[in-house]
Amino acid sequence: MNTSAVVAVRGKIPKSDLMVLTPLHPDRLLPADPTTRSVARTLYAQVRQLPVLAAHGHVDARLLLGDQPFADAASLLVTGDHYVLRVLHSVGVAPEALGLGGRPVEPTEVWRSFCAHWDDFRGTAMRAWLEYQLVELFDVELPLLAGTATESFDAVGARLAEPAFRPRALFDRFGIEVLSTTDRPGADFAAHDALKSAGLNVVPTLRPDELTDPTRPAWRDAVESAGVASYDELLAHLRTERQRSAEHGAVATDHGHALPLTEDLEPVEARTLFGRLVKNEAGPGDAERFAANMVTQMALMALDDGLVLQLHTGVVRDHDGPAAARFGSDIGSDFPLPVHFTTGLRPMLERVGDEPGLRIVLFTMDESAFSRDLAPLASYYPAVHLGAPWWFLDAPDAMARHFAATVESAGYAKLTGFVDDTRAFCSIPARHDMARRAIASHLARQVTEHRLSIEEASEVAYAYAYGQPKSLYRL
Amino acid sequence: MNTSAVVAVRGKIPKSDLMVLTPLHPDRLLPADPTTRSVARTLYAQVRQLPVLAAHGHVDARLLLGDQPFADAASLLVTGDHYVLRVLHSVGVAPEALGLGGRPVEPTEVWRSFCAHWDDFRGTAMRAWLEYQLVELFDVELPLLAGTATESFDAVGARLAEPAFRPRALFDRFGIEVLSTTDRPGADFAAHDALKSAGLNVVPTLRPDELTDPTRPAWRDAVESAGVASYDELLAHLRTERQRSAEHGAVATDHGHALPLTEDLEPVEARTLFGRLVKNEAGPGDAERFAANMVTQMALMALDDGLVLQLHTGVVRDHDGPAAARFGSDIGSDFPLPVHFTTGLRPMLERVGDEPGLRIVLFTMDESAFSRDLAPLASYYPAVHLGAPWWFLDAPDAMARHFAATVESAGYAKLTGFVDDTRAFCSIPARHDMARRAIASHLARQVTEHRLSIEEASEVAYAYAYGQPKSLYRL
Amino acid sequence: MNTSAVVAVRGKIPKSDLMVLTPLHPDRLLPADPTTRSVARTLYAQVRQLPVLAAHGHVDARLLLGDQPFADAASLLVTGDHYVLRVLHSVGVAPEALGLGGRPVEPTEVWRSFCAHWDDFRGTAMRAWLEYQLVELFDVELPLLAGTATESFDAVGARLAEPAFRPRALFDRFGIEVLSTTDRPGADFAAHDALKSAGLNVVPTLRPDELTDPTRPAWRDAVESAGVASYDELLAHLRTERQRSAEHGAVATDHGHALPLTEDLEPVEARTLFGRLVKNEAGPGDAERFAANMVTQMALMALDDGLVLQLHTGVVRDHDGPAAARFGSDIGSDFPLPVHFTTGLRPMLERVGDEPGLRIVLFTMDESAFSRDLAPLASYYPAVHLGAPWWFLDAPDAMARHFAATVESAGYAKLTGFVDDTRAFCSIPARHDMARRAIASHLARQVTEHRLSIEEASEVAYAYAYGQPKSLYRL
Repeated sequence: MNTSAVVAVRGKIPKSDLMVLTPLHPDRLLPADPTTRSVARTLYAQVRQLPVLAAHGHVDARLLLGDQPFADAASLLVTGDHYVLRVLHSVGVAPEALGLGGRPVEPTEVWRSFCAHWDDFRGTAMRAWLEYQLVELFDVELPLLAGTATESFDAVGARLAEPAFRPRALFDRFGIEVLSTTDRPGADFAAHDALKSAGLNVVPTLRPDELTDPTRPAWRDAVESAGVASYDELLAHLRTERQRSAEHGAVATDHGHALPLTEDLEPVEARTLFGRLVKNEAGPGDAERFAANMVTQMALMALDDGLVLQLHTGVVRDHDGPAAARFGSDIGSDFPLPVHFTTGLRPMLERVGDEPGLRIVLFTMDESAFSRDLAPLASYYPAVHLGAPWWFLDAPDAMARHFAATVESAGYAKLTGFVDDTRAFCSIPARHDMARRAIASHLARQVTEHRLSIEEASEVAYAYAYGQPKSLYRL
Repeated sequence: MNTSAVVAVRGKIPKSDLMVLTPLHPDRLLPADPTTRSVARTLYAQVRQLPVLAAHGHVDARLLLGDQPFADAASLLVTGDHYVLRVLHSVGVAPEALGLGGRPVEPTEVWRSFCAHWDDFRGTAMRAWLEYQLVELFDVELPLLAGTATESFDAVGARLAEPAFRPRALFDRFGIEVLSTTDRPGADFAAHDALKSAGLNVVPTLRPDELTDPTRPAWRDAVESAGVASYDELLAHLRTERQRSAEHGAVATDHGHALPLTEDLEPVEARTLFGRLVKNEAGPGDAERFAANMVTQMALMALDDGLVLQLHTGVVRDHDGPAAARFGSDIGSDFPLPVHFTTGLRPMLERVGDEPGLRIVLFTMDESAFSRDLAPLASYYPAVHLGAPWWFLDAPDAMARHFAATVESAGYAKLTGFVDDTRAFCSIPARHDMARRAIASHLARQVTEHRLSIEEASEVAYAYAYGQPKSLYRL
Repeated sequence: MNTSAVVAVRGKIPKSDLMVLTPLHPDRLLPADPTTRSVARTLYAQVRQLPVLAAHGHVDARLLLGDQPFADAASLLVTGDHYVLRVLHSVGVAPEALGLGGRPVEPTEVWRSFCAHWDDFRGTAMRAWLEYQLVELFDVELPLLAGTATESFDAVGARLAEPAFRPRALFDRFGIEVLSTTDRPGADFAAHDALKSAGLNVVPTLRPDELTDPTRPAWRDAVESAGVASYDELLAHLRTERQRSAEHGAVATDHGHALPLTEDLEPVEARTLFGRLVKNEAGPGDAERFAANMVTQMALMALDDGLVLQLHTGVVRDHDGPAAARFGSDIGSDFPLPVHFTTGLRPMLERVGDEPGLRIVLFTMDESAFSRDLAPLASYYPAVHLGAPWWFLDAPDAMARHFAATVESAGYAKLTGFVDDTRAFCSIPARHDMARRAIASHLARQVTEHRLSIEEASEVAYAYAYGQPKSLYRL
């Protein structure tokens, strides 16, 4: 076959047809088999409009406090979302072309670059989230095209100028019942309090890594700034910070250590380690050992104060060091590492794993741990719960694999349900909608294969979408 | 959306409907697509009633020798099954509440706790096994409910009091052709012999870990008790023990080393290691190296005596040390470790892997090894065969993944077929039934996708359910 | 149930029916659900006849230059294909019985052994490739049977004697647009040039491992033979070799280091390492470190000369050492190792990963890396592209898993598409056909689940089968 034959084959699809609209299909992401789809539809319909519990978010409370209109489509949907930036970078769009790290670029130009690469998002979770936002929220015609970039940019812009598209109005429209933020030790919770008074339930989440993890270069500075001079003072300070966040509504803490390692050190050893670390006299492994012990200490405090302990591990941050130096973090070069939970979590779990009142939520991006580590641990330890597939795995097929790999050992009871994990405020409903379609699709197969009754599946779908996080996070 | 809206959505499902019966559907676990289901039904029907080869079991021969009625539902289905205990523990049922590790608890109370947590088993393999036993064997109405715990407890109890529910009658009813036990070195085989005379084919399986694996604390005691004073005496002793088990019907040995490591040491080195180990003068790695060599020695003996070598690795036992100390082992806190077979098995396979008369069966709970390690090794070495997915992976979706991940490289010829792996006697038919549904479902897709003819699929289903283990284990 | 019951069940399938023909079904490998199959059929039909880009092959150019008839069915389809040899070995066919490593065996005998084991290929990718060749190319009736081995051997033989079955005629019939070979440094490209003149686009691929990887025992000899006396001379020599291959049509280089490790050493350190290595005075880790640096050096040269850098890692070669010593390499005992790309590739990617003009193609046989390492890296670094599932994973279900595990993060844009990887010339169309059925099946689900429009799916299918490798490899 020669080139003209290729053209002949391709010729069957007139180019104009390639450009037809792709509206949001009501059955998108639901299984194709008609019986299974019908069950999935029923289950999805039951959970579609449930309130949103965004209990693991990274949106800044000041966004809602200020309630300013979003600037434009480019900053809202492109440069403000490191998932989108990452894909654009991967297909050769230089960060400078998007206005990062130097000379500003016109938002319309940023948007045009994005539109020109719309096809490169095919098959990704980001595409599904973007479609949801563009169609459902902004009523924009798809596909985006470079040739109509001005029109789509302006269409989004017109909406953003309306009062109904200010952050607080959207908070309401999105059906958000609770939105968690992520807060450093010492953070000010005035915004949270003000929002609370205004009827928006925006709660802080303490992320104390800078104090608990001496493998971070900034640890000594953070400890010094906190006025902490000893291990015991560190524990007391963290206890106070936890208490303070809880008083402002926090239901959880968030921990991003590099690997899921824990230790349960005797205080005397921990004190010695602290001393060496703070004086910069630590030996090899000291920082890792101290950090590992701090996870167990956090679990012990959680047992007292009832905050959920969320453990996110297995990430190398700023993998592309030179780019991070030029353009900052959060441009998409954080990547997963292989993680092994079974041995690493043992010291903590031997200490507190049997406590039913404690809630440790494990997240991973290494799916080989789904059935090997996570489901077995959650299927035994009452304190262990499994977070939804995280970050790169926050996607329909990955969710299907997560359900299939964990439920047979651990059941649905030990899944936290979906609480999202995003900085991109307007993507929140899209992400919850995707998760609700995913659980409905999974459960529909359980029903058609006569593993669960439709009534049971209905209860599980409700629990996954809303009931389980509500009770687990004590919302 | 507010709480009343939630109630409205939930309100569509009247609570009474949630409590309808879930009888065992004849098509359960079969694929939903009508054509594929129809093929799966045909294949399943062909293997459903084949005799059961429980060639990898852990039931005690004395259970059958004594042939006493099972005590009650609680001890039979709950406290006697560490899979079930594990899930109850994971949702906060304290072992003490089930009568473990201290003050006895009334069986009816144990049963009520179990019934109260019936919903927590949704989606698990255990639920499918329990449903099969409750409905098929004991004619109990589902779901179990705390409110009707007395009725269901009594219903099971009434059956257990019937002669038809004594172990030997069930052995017959279950269609068990061969049942293997697991036996320590020096075990007495009188029960096996007596059962043989009574027409029940119950065969021993030597598990010599206590003598072959010096990483276990009890190794030196075991070696001393066996009267073994040198490496050569140890080999001779093991050869005798193997021979003795074979004379009483054994077809295999079972090995549970922590990791799949092998060595092929010169006798002089092995003798030196033995000397150091027995005198408690071993250096780092000595015990592991000696244990690794013993796997190869077992394979060499297997080449002589024809016993199948079953290798189970990658488990950390009694992960929850404090609970194990209080309540004993077998409460569910054994967990998988990452395993890498390719490098670890090389010394043994270079020595004996090309022997077609040798049968080494590999089991794993780390499914990342399915396509990376296991299928490639089995697709080359005639001695290597792949056991069914093990323990946490003994479940329908995991089996589907195992088939999909191994067959494309290694074919069906190198799968041992299903021989189960359970201490819970009454779960045996449920487990084989599930495996037969799983292979039928897998093969149905092969047929509908025109990869295999229906006749070929039929042969493979038969081989997996019965023919292959029968010939491989020389039953 | 007793043995007669087993016979009764089996009796339902008369043995004669088991022997019916299995012709190549036009819908083979396409999904069973009718709607999805219909979409898959459409997509497959659009790409089925596209030209073949065999841009990652291992066929010898002299096969085409000589254009001699293939000798017989046995050498063509059995002993000439290490995938087939491997499976035969795994079911107990000794290499000697196939004429390897000693006394010659009649080709008819080799063929008879193969036919006798036809059933052992059930479920494997090899079976699908063999069926395609036997039916599509040689018009042989299936199944192969030992009893009709003479007939099938002769049927293939009769075809092979026809002029239309000589290599060049098949090259044309297969629709091969480009065929890459694999070439050692210093290789002679006369065959490539002669073929070019004759209108066959057969291009070399430099595989410089013997010069770049001092962990290979032959490294020092290779360096000496090349007349290379320093690190700088080595770089210059490699640059020249790359240039020379490019002048003869090469579009890529191929690298088979054991693990995906890279370093970006200062020249002074690399020079020192070279000195130690060449004098056999290297310390532990020196060879690995030098090899790791050479990957980055290759990437830097690729940035200059535009050759695609293909990285295949994670293989232990000649795992069965004794068999390799007797029968040579390429009998099937090369196996996958666990691989971790994220940390290992960082030094190279920090140096050149952001270069959109550079094309690094990553292959793996460890599918736990699909979603954890490969998709994330490709979803950020413009230089990183993902090769099709490799070797043991070059199979329909593995391809389905690869798509599902990578596309949600990285999109289709970062998949190279299918370029095969085979020494078995006649298997080329079978392998491309399988890949085209796999992508059509995957995309059909994307369409029926409303993730992509049919027009988009059509574009992606075309890109995967032809367009993407054409542009990526600059063919």
